[in-house]
Amino acid sequence: MDKSHVEKLNWIDEIHEDVRYGLKAKVILDEYSDYQRITIIESNRYGKGLLLDSCWMTAEFQEKHYHEALVHPALCSANDIKRVLIIGGGDGGTAKECLRHKQIKNLDLIEIDNRVIEVCQEYLPGIGSYAWKDPRLNIKIEDGITWVSNAHENSYDVIIVDGSDPKGPAKGLFNRNFYENCKRILKPGGVFATQSESPESFFKIHIEMVQIIREVFNFADPLYGWVPMYPSGWWSWTFASKESPIYLNPMKERADQIKEECEIWSIRWQQGAFHAMPAFVERALEK
Amino acid sequence: MDKSHVEKLNWIDEIHEDVRYGLKAKVILDEYSDYQRITIIESNRYGKGLLLDSCWMTAEFQEKHYHEALVHPALCSANDIKRVLIIGGGDGGTAKECLRHKQIKNLDLIEIDNRVIEVCQEYLPGIGSYAWKDPRLNIKIEDGITWVSNAHENSYDVIIVDGSDPKGPAKGLFNRNFYENCKRILKPGGVFATQSESPESFFKIHIEMVQIIREVFNFADPLYGWVPMYPSGWWSWTFASKESPIYLNPMKERADQIKEECEIWSIRWQQGAFHAMPAFVERALEK
Repeated sequence: MDKSHVEKLNWIDEIHEDVRYGLKAKVILDEYSDYQRITIIESNRYGKGLLLDSCWMTAEFQEKHYHEALVHPALCSANDIKRVLIIGGGDGGTAKECLRHKQIKNLDLIEIDNRVIEVCQEYLPGIGSYAWKDPRLNIKIEDGITWVSNAHENSYDVIIVDGSDPKGPAKGLFNRNFYENCKRILKPGGVFATQSESPESFFKIHIEMVQIIREVFNFADPLYGWVPMYPSGWWSWTFASKESPIYLNPMKERADQIKEECEIWSIRWQQGAFHAMPAFVERALEK
Repeated sequence: MDKSHVEKLNWIDEIHEDVRYGLKAKVILDEYSDYQRITIIESNRYGKGLLLDSCWMTAEFQEKHYHEALVHPALCSANDIKRVLIIGGGDGGTAKECLRHKQIKNLDLIEIDNRVIEVCQEYLPGIGSYAWKDPRLNIKIEDGITWVSNAHENSYDVIIVDGSDPKGPAKGLFNRNFYENCKRILKPGGVFATQSESPESFFKIHIEMVQIIREVFNFADPLYGWVPMYPSGWWSWTFASKESPIYLNPMKERADQIKEECEIWSIRWQQGAFHAMPAFVERALEK
């Protein structure tokens, strides 16, 4: 994040490979937790926003692009959705989208950095919103990698990985051992979901993630959407299951209970987004 | 474009509604033609690039995202593709993608600003590439609005509008009268194609364009893809025809002759991209 000239209102940028995306904003909070730099800004265009280690994570008026795409393909398709696990997701947006599904009985949110939750609850309360008070939500301040390695077999109907890029505290969320534990603790008929980076700005990571997840689970497919504040604006999420590509077929009755509040997601959008694989990605995955 | 600190290598940004997208680059050329400011930069990440009136237009290593999405859905689906018209497109990228289709006999490119063509031929020769020397290409330096109002009925199999945002010289490419002339000069079984802005950064313009084009032609649908250097990174192109939504069904034999050189476009990608309409756009178009 370049904020060399921070005064009242200035440009706050994430810089990635000689490209920058910036919002005109003021810095409200900028501190180091035990794990990372945490910055809260207030922008003209998208309201308040969060950066971790100088990378854009979310903002009040841009969060649904990311959270709806991560959550609803999984929660509308898994056989059952009583017990759901979120790894990361300290801003609360993923939990909020999950808890719109009435069938959830228990939602475990495993966040390594308590300070992210505290800061988001204070400065970005609309992103987690009612989720923070929902009795179905159980927050555990723990390393998600340890959590999945300790959890019992067949513990969860849905597992959602909502981590940042593969560096710093999120690095261990991008390897085979982690995915194998996720598979082990996923119930039959369950769905695994993870953000899987930009096919443009993180091409190699994206391809490797899809390939490894496919090898581990048997069935895995990415879908492609947009998060304007992330590098290239073009983002992906990958869904996996053990028995069949169940995640390709959302249930209409589950969609009906959430669709009115969705900005991006719909059954139509999801079907298109799974299909809209660019030619260079299709070729790379065929190799 | 903020280039207040231009030295050898600096940030060149397009600023749109308190958001900026910048490339680390040096300015190679910066001048005013009779119509607009023309800037050529050389960036680390995407090679040389063009800005018109301080807005990103194209760059060597990012141009195919835009040009393939604009051209191939139309040229793979129109009944015939002997006579094709491009309005704008002075960088040559649209012409290059068109001329990969062997069935084209005549390609008229109507560009209002001769200086754009000269500058792109000199500094961005790879974008137009072989198109500039193809005898099928006829360049006319004229106002595209005048051209379509003077052209005879049923003159073209495909009409492609490759203009910038609706301000400055491109403003007249975004109104009912222009679309009605395009419809008039389009042959039966023909397809009309236009870039149709970002559903995120130009929401109102995008919705109005789709609605008006649908009213004029009877059948029109947008597809959604990515141009990282454009505002929000999220972009749309709209296709129209008079008799049926023929543009939804690309012909496999036409796709086969171009697909190997495509980075983004494929029949699969196109079908997904037409389907991946975000919920907020679907609701706005239903009103």
